[in-house]
Amino acid sequence: MNNFRMYVPTDIRFGKNRLNELPEVLEPYGKRVLLAYGGGSIKRFGLYDKVVDLLESNGFHIVELTGIEPNPKIDSVREGVKLIREHALDVILAVGGGSVVDAAKVIAGGVYYDGDAWDLVEDSSKMGKAVPIVDILTLAATGTEMNRNAVISNPERNEKLGTSGWELLPKVSFLDPTNTFTVPASQTAAGAADILSHLFEQYFNHTAGVDVQDNIAEGLMKAVIQHAPTAIQTPDDYIARANILWASTLALNGIPGNGRAGGWTCHPIEHELSAYYDITHGIGLAILTPRWMAYCLNHDATTIPKFAKYARNVWHLEGDDEIIAHQAVKATHDFLKSLGIPMTLPEVGITTDELVSDMSAQAVQHGHLTQSAYVALENDDVAEIIRASFEEMTDF
Amino acid sequence: MNNFRMYVPTDIRFGKNRLNELPEVLEPYGKRVLLAYGGGSIKRFGLYDKVVDLLESNGFHIVELTGIEPNPKIDSVREGVKLIREHALDVILAVGGGSVVDAAKVIAGGVYYDGDAWDLVEDSSKMGKAVPIVDILTLAATGTEMNRNAVISNPERNEKLGTSGWELLPKVSFLDPTNTFTVPASQTAAGAADILSHLFEQYFNHTAGVDVQDNIAEGLMKAVIQHAPTAIQTPDDYIARANILWASTLALNGIPGNGRAGGWTCHPIEHELSAYYDITHGIGLAILTPRWMAYCLNHDATTIPKFAKYARNVWHLEGDDEIIAHQAVKATHDFLKSLGIPMTLPEVGITTDELVSDMSAQAVQHGHLTQSAYVALENDDVAEIIRASFEEMTDF
Repeated sequence: MNNFRMYVPTDIRFGKNRLNELPEVLEPYGKRVLLAYGGGSIKRFGLYDKVVDLLESNGFHIVELTGIEPNPKIDSVREGVKLIREHALDVILAVGGGSVVDAAKVIAGGVYYDGDAWDLVEDSSKMGKAVPIVDILTLAATGTEMNRNAVISNPERNEKLGTSGWELLPKVSFLDPTNTFTVPASQTAAGAADILSHLFEQYFNHTAGVDVQDNIAEGLMKAVIQHAPTAIQTPDDYIARANILWASTLALNGIPGNGRAGGWTCHPIEHELSAYYDITHGIGLAILTPRWMAYCLNHDATTIPKFAKYARNVWHLEGDDEIIAHQAVKATHDFLKSLGIPMTLPEVGITTDELVSDMSAQAVQHGHLTQSAYVALENDDVAEIIRASFEEMTDF
Repeated sequence: MNNFRMYVPTDIRFGKNRLNELPEVLEPYGKRVLLAYGGGSIKRFGLYDKVVDLLESNGFHIVELTGIEPNPKIDSVREGVKLIREHALDVILAVGGGSVVDAAKVIAGGVYYDGDAWDLVEDSSKMGKAVPIVDILTLAATGTEMNRNAVISNPERNEKLGTSGWELLPKVSFLDPTNTFTVPASQTAAGAADILSHLFEQYFNHTAGVDVQDNIAEGLMKAVIQHAPTAIQTPDDYIARANILWASTLALNGIPGNGRAGGWTCHPIEHELSAYYDITHGIGLAILTPRWMAYCLNHDATTIPKFAKYARNVWHLEGDDEIIAHQAVKATHDFLKSLGIPMTLPEVGITTDELVSDMSAQAVQHGHLTQSAYVALENDDVAEIIRASFEEMTDF
């Protein structure tokens, strides 16, 4: 186990019927609020009205930043920075999924940065002070509600990059499972894939002696695997939604990852798919993950014991290490497919491989995949994984 | 899953060779430090000298509170309050195990309380503002380093009670596994029993739909079961010590318990054993726990499925629920015994049952065992569990 620092002072308010705590939560930061949200869903399902009524009746002044898209764009960030400066706002209230919170984070840092906010995405060392953020999460997926990371896209440059800063941690996150009842099946499935991928990226790692972290990661994987099918079939199943929501937060608040060295693999590759084709992040991850797992097993036999551990502890498979390791890849693939996820790139509209080389090179560079990945990957290796994603997966 | 709030802003500095961070960590709180510690062990093993040298060479003024005992006594708390007031100290640096940190917490609250500090133990609602606490932990057991709870004993009243306060959360906790290398086998075993008991108290609970929390609790149990024997046999095994230390912190920082209703059982009963006989807390828990488990199974058949789940997921037992539930009780008992823990009360010096009725009544009252325990217990039920602890356990 490596040394680590864990400092996560986000105040989590988990559960239903606690929106009335919002005014008291915002009050210490000020009365002038940037209300950041995405499309129309929070209006359609009534959350927008509730929040606005509550804030206005408690004397808050609201300025709105709307239209924050999935794979949130740097233009939304720039607009948010401008609004906060123009209207001298005190605090950001982000209402939505991970995209809205991620945009809020870079807005928060951008207000105190003398330059274009994209600089903060390209170089997190430039991130300093930030406007306080409170969020009301409506989607279980990214874990951004309890960490200091954000991912922003720049369509002009075909770039989707992660940044971070200690000041970006949300002050308070409202996690109400009922706010995720209206998430459609496809997004629920993509969210589950995203959570699982966060856990895989941390779990498949070479640092020895991290059993506490491994056991917790396995426990969170099992909770997602148990509850995601229910959440998809019965969208208003509170227990299923609650477990997935809390698993999504814990998957990326540091606990499964603390004390490990080494970087991620599928996320950097997927960021290129999203950057070039703007596909849903969780779907991209679901498609890539089993191909990457098979790649690891086929190219680096030292990974077999860890995949066998995953097979035993998460999928309850028994037998020879190598055999159950491959069976676990199939189990992972089949589970994701059972959630209704389109498991090939053509199904999400990526029909030619003309950009595979470009995307692979970018992934290797941005993700430092030759140095820090679980199994080191060169451009051609990434291209092999992406190319395998064009066909139905039959060989595990 | 019930609603919960999780707000744990303790800054964890986990790992070796990071004591040099101490001056920078204390600095924001002030230069006048109450150095609180227990007996001679931190002097014997050199930690005391390192801390004092580091603080003095960085211009800190130190006042010492020494002699804080296991089952920390209210007199130590009173003395600490007096020292902080007399010397106008800014911050408490607690160096030691859970007892030292618990004493520091009530001292911290006592400084701002206009009355006897015991009031704050009897009634946590009187706990308000507190002096900031930084700690260097030397024992993996209580989890106090990342929560807002403290347990203090009052020998004059034969009382050992828990209290809590949001302000009592340590600001920074240094968790260096090498500081636990010198913990003797008996204390290492007692610590492991304490950690497991914290997990059992939360896991054996009636709130439905808390799979995330259950899975994490099981994962932490497995880590303790895996690593405690190694830590006892090879005291300087870094990986074993690191896993136990981190498991001890996570076992009681809220994560395994959030979202559940209901109270604890073995802790309130053990607190009476410690209050009357001053035995080692973890040993008392180890003795009581398997008897309590057997009591639950024998008196409330609705507990069988949860014990069977525990049997399957933690002990990898397979078969009929009721059979493996009882086998898991035996596995728990035998594991604790294998750590070298004396598993009967006479072995820890409690040879007569003359106080069993008194202790049982106190446990029921202080622990609210008739209302909130996993299996509700009246005075006679607690007495049955304690009386069973006088004999070697043979019936599981």
